Amino acid sequence: MFDLKGIYCPIATPFVNDKIAYDKLDENLTFWTSSKLEGIVVMGSNGEFVSLLEKEKEELIAHCCKKIAGKKRVVVGTGSNCFEETIRLCQVSKDNGADAVLLVTPFYYKSSMKDDVLAAYYTAVADRSPLPVIIYNMPANTGVNMSSALQAKLSRHPNIVGVKDTSGNIVQIAETIRDAAPGFSVLAGNWAFLLPSLCLGAKGGTLALSNVLPNECAELIELFNAGKMEEAKQLAFRLMPVNAAVTTKYGIAGLKAAMEYVGLYGGDLRLPLQRANETVRAEVRSALVNAGIAVREVN
Amino acid sequence: MFDLKGIYCPIATPFVNDKIAYDKLDENLTFWTSSKLEGIVVMGSNGEFVSLLEKEKEELIAHCCKKIAGKKRVVVGTGSNCFEETIRLCQVSKDNGADAVLLVTPFYYKSSMKDDVLAAYYTAVADRSPLPVIIYNMPANTGVNMSSALQAKLSRHPNIVGVKDTSGNIVQIAETIRDAAPGFSVLAGNWAFLLPSLCLGAKGGTLALSNVLPNECAELIELFNAGKMEEAKQLAFRLMPVNAAVTTKYGIAGLKAAMEYVGLYGGDLRLPLQRANETVRAEVRSALVNAGIAVREVN
Amino acid sequence: MFDLKGIYCPIATPFVNDKIAYDKLDENLTFWTSSKLEGIVVMGSNGEFVSLLEKEKEELIAHCCKKIAGKKRVVVGTGSNCFEETIRLCQVSKDNGADAVLLVTPFYYKSSMKDDVLAAYYTAVADRSPLPVIIYNMPANTGVNMSSALQAKLSRHPNIVGVKDTSGNIVQIAETIRDAAPGFSVLAGNWAFLLPSLCLGAKGGTLALSNVLPNECAELIELFNAGKMEEAKQLAFRLMPVNAAVTTKYGIAGLKAAMEYVGLYGGDLRLPLQRANETVRAEVRSALVNAGIAVREVN
Amino acid sequence: MFDLKGIYCPIATPFVNDKIAYDKLDENLTFWTSSKLEGIVVMGSNGEFVSLLEKEKEELIAHCCKKIAGKKRVVVGTGSNCFEETIRLCQVSKDNGADAVLLVTPFYYKSSMKDDVLAAYYTAVADRSPLPVIIYNMPANTGVNMSSALQAKLSRHPNIVGVKDTSGNIVQIAETIRDAAPGFSVLAGNWAFLLPSLCLGAKGGTLALSNVLPNECAELIELFNAGKMEEAKQLAFRLMPVNAAVTTKYGIAGLKAAMEYVGLYGGDLRLPLQRANETVRAEVRSALVNAGIAVREVN
Repeated sequence: MFDLKGIYCPIATPFVNDKIAYDKLDENLTFWTSSKLEGIVVMGSNGEFVSLLEKEKEELIAHCCKKIAGKKRVVVGTGSNCFEETIRLCQVSKDNGADAVLLVTPFYYKSSMKDDVLAAYYTAVADRSPLPVIIYNMPANTGVNMSSALQAKLSRHPNIVGVKDTSGNIVQIAETIRDAAPGFSVLAGNWAFLLPSLCLGAKGGTLALSNVLPNECAELIELFNAGKMEEAKQLAFRLMPVNAAVTTKYGIAGLKAAMEYVGLYGGDLRLPLQRANETVRAEVRSALVNAGIAVREVN
Repeated sequence: MFDLKGIYCPIATPFVNDKIAYDKLDENLTFWTSSKLEGIVVMGSNGEFVSLLEKEKEELIAHCCKKIAGKKRVVVGTGSNCFEETIRLCQVSKDNGADAVLLVTPFYYKSSMKDDVLAAYYTAVADRSPLPVIIYNMPANTGVNMSSALQAKLSRHPNIVGVKDTSGNIVQIAETIRDAAPGFSVLAGNWAFLLPSLCLGAKGGTLALSNVLPNECAELIELFNAGKMEEAKQLAFRLMPVNAAVTTKYGIAGLKAAMEYVGLYGGDLRLPLQRANETVRAEVRSALVNAGIAVREVN
Repeated sequence: MFDLKGIYCPIATPFVNDKIAYDKLDENLTFWTSSKLEGIVVMGSNGEFVSLLEKEKEELIAHCCKKIAGKKRVVVGTGSNCFEETIRLCQVSKDNGADAVLLVTPFYYKSSMKDDVLAAYYTAVADRSPLPVIIYNMPANTGVNMSSALQAKLSRHPNIVGVKDTSGNIVQIAETIRDAAPGFSVLAGNWAFLLPSLCLGAKGGTLALSNVLPNECAELIELFNAGKMEEAKQLAFRLMPVNAAVTTKYGIAGLKAAMEYVGLYGGDLRLPLQRANETVRAEVRSALVNAGIAVREVN
Repeated sequence: MFDLKGIYCPIATPFVNDKIAYDKLDENLTFWTSSKLEGIVVMGSNGEFVSLLEKEKEELIAHCCKKIAGKKRVVVGTGSNCFEETIRLCQVSKDNGADAVLLVTPFYYKSSMKDDVLAAYYTAVADRSPLPVIIYNMPANTGVNMSSALQAKLSRHPNIVGVKDTSGNIVQIAETIRDAAPGFSVLAGNWAFLLPSLCLGAKGGTLALSNVLPNECAELIELFNAGKMEEAKQLAFRLMPVNAAVTTKYGIAGLKAAMEYVGLYGGDLRLPLQRANETVRAEVRSALVNAGIAVREVN
């Protein structure tokens, strides 16, 4: 069983003329795979996975697995509202050499997503998945929250190895850590609460911010592990405004803008999402500058 | 431009062994097409559209359009989080002779679904769709609500002809009716607020309940149009508990159970949804009996 | 038992230099008592009841009852988080000749306000109150919603005669009307959903808007009772923007501004509330003008 | 300016036959004042301050200040929806020798409680209060949340010295700590997130749990200050179920039950709150026993 820890980057998917721009993606991957990241998440929320056709998903998995293989861990977001698609994507991920899958809670029939329904669903996928499953709790996008009680229960499944919790509910995170099976890993889903999560026993984070600043994200864990709490706190505080700009405030539009300011390819978003306008780009740039990050000029 | 009014039935999709059971579907369609329904919605929320593969969607559209043609209006739910899939399904619907498409708000990146983003999205789809577009506002499932201001604005688009509003927000419904372009139709998305919506000028409803009781649903509109307010109210009240059982309380599981009690084929649901258990089935049965609906015994 | 119906006005409390301005209040009362209002609610939400000292409440009750006696029904808002104060105010209301009391749900320990707790509370007050009790469901202010099931249950108490429901949940209103004991009256708590509530069997409304436009509010009921649905709808639509300005949009600040534009005394609000600023006043004025209401110039 | 840090206990108010039982209160105070608590909060949420008459509040302040003087810090909850009452209670607190006041956000006109309104309100109270003001952010009870931006802004007021934040929003807590004026103290409002708050720079906590286990609460801070993170985490985890039982799960009813199990006087609650029933008491007892707390038998 693999040891889920450190910083995983849920990478953005670059588009040019509404097609996946694999050449641009490869440039970005070169940067990420030579960073302090522990692993890479393909087709997470920041990867606009819901905007991809079935065929595109398969191609993207194959492409990324090949490029990342041997350099970093690869986790693939295989969750969808269509069970059969999810199962097939788990198999595709396995066939291409990925290490694990990230399984978002189903997100359409919210009022039906009671604990017992979610429990049966996760068990059904984990029973069939040829790769270890990481739970993905993302209430801001899904409108569904998985309770710590259910997380702890699912942690007993032999093929469920951890959770990315993006709820920001620090009490829920504490309860899951306290009650989960030994070896089950909790990853914070956002930089804004990574440090307090580490204090409670989280093993790492899966962070949009690590698209832009992978090494800085990894350094927080190094500082924490070295017991340098004051420096960890200062680092956490310093990057919080940048983090807000690329997550809660401006979402993927903010993220792709920030990527361009640090020399990566951001590019277009697929509808309904839209590229950041000038005002947003200026705010993203300010947040980077204020945090002491060198920015390159973008036309 | 077609006149959107009356009762539309967002039909359930029957599954056997996880496959679409077209023979069972045809039996149900025979019942619905010979009822007082004005039209049929294929791949609405009750049709579990999010659980279908791309290929299944195309087959289902073709099948239903052929069976319903000449008997009832056909509306196809073509909304999805993937823009390209939505556009293709609009074309497929047109090619198969459907009358209009129902376009749910994108439902993953909720915090980004501001009015301007939704406006651009609906405009982009309506510009490209070869069929008239009906807005589908379904906050309970999507976590996104479209304001009456935006509904009224979009009503000016020449290819947007109406809205199915399932919010239950009667003030929003009133504002949309008051402010929308002439000819734009508001349909209530749930029996529970159909009558008050009619009082404010709504033209009809798209109702899960009409899977089970299509004629009774249509009779409410007849009573209202005849000025028989007291009888309309009594009918509305009488069926509210049945309606709750097949929508807010037990969702599609309740709906499929109720369908079986009135002699239709309900059948399985796709994961993550699950068949109603015995307790739920008993409550659904009671609701039907208490409303004076004849039930057949189901094993 | 008194017949609760028609339009009740939850009157604003005028302040000058932070004291209740009884002379200004009397001028307003002269207008209201000579209107088509059925009754007046002293110390409702618009009366800033939570901002009054115990002594002020007793004085205000006595003053208003004396002025209104013989002209209109008087209902007193006696709810508070302090049970003993509530009971005493019920007695004071009785002693001064009021007709009924309006009892808001307790609003501090929200997570404890389960149905059984609210049932026990309302029963305890209704058992002791020398005046009939009207339930006041006001979730926007209290953060607590009373379910239709509980409203219907409490309607069986011999001393509970009706409910002012401000939730705007039209399904809840329908269910209460359907299930309540005979003789129990449902009053809509806001103009925005008065007409659809009447269609379902509500007996009237307790409306902030009736501070400003009491006769117009009463006319909606006249039109509805005369079966003039189209005119009722047009009136309802026409005043909705004014209503929004004096309730959901700008609250009591908007209400007091509007009062001044129609020649009543509005005046200051008590902290934490504040007088409408110029921008808000201009919007309130526009809303009145657009609805065809004559406005007087205010310095 | 006093140094706000450590554990403050928001003490429960004991009632016998609906009157404040001062003899019982004194027994409890003897226990608390001889513990490791830093201070005591009179008339916080757990003190049922909203259920007290104006006169009772003044008596309770005087009584407690006298008993606690010279032993522990005294903070008085003077917040209310009535500005004049709040100002008078601040003066009463000063006259009786209290150290500071705790000022809850006004909690009735929620939709009007925008940042600028709250800013003006807190400034108005802090300008007039003869004692330093501690902001009390308690969204679960008030339905109002004060943003970190506003907390940081108010921290610049010379008479505002800290905040008790009960939101549980760890990102908000981090932002306030990062942006507040030097010397401004953040206190966690619940045991469940005290440890992560300390990691981010919080100075202590104001905790319902400290009614029952004051020394254990204080020990968490000792462990944290000594750098014993693992022991701190284990202690935090061990008491979380007890804490849930006396806060989020069962509220003050659970708290008073737990107090009785550790030999304090709990007693009745005032309506609308009610004494814990047998089921709840059994759960509270189990939570204590499971955490290794010695319980005495209660009839």
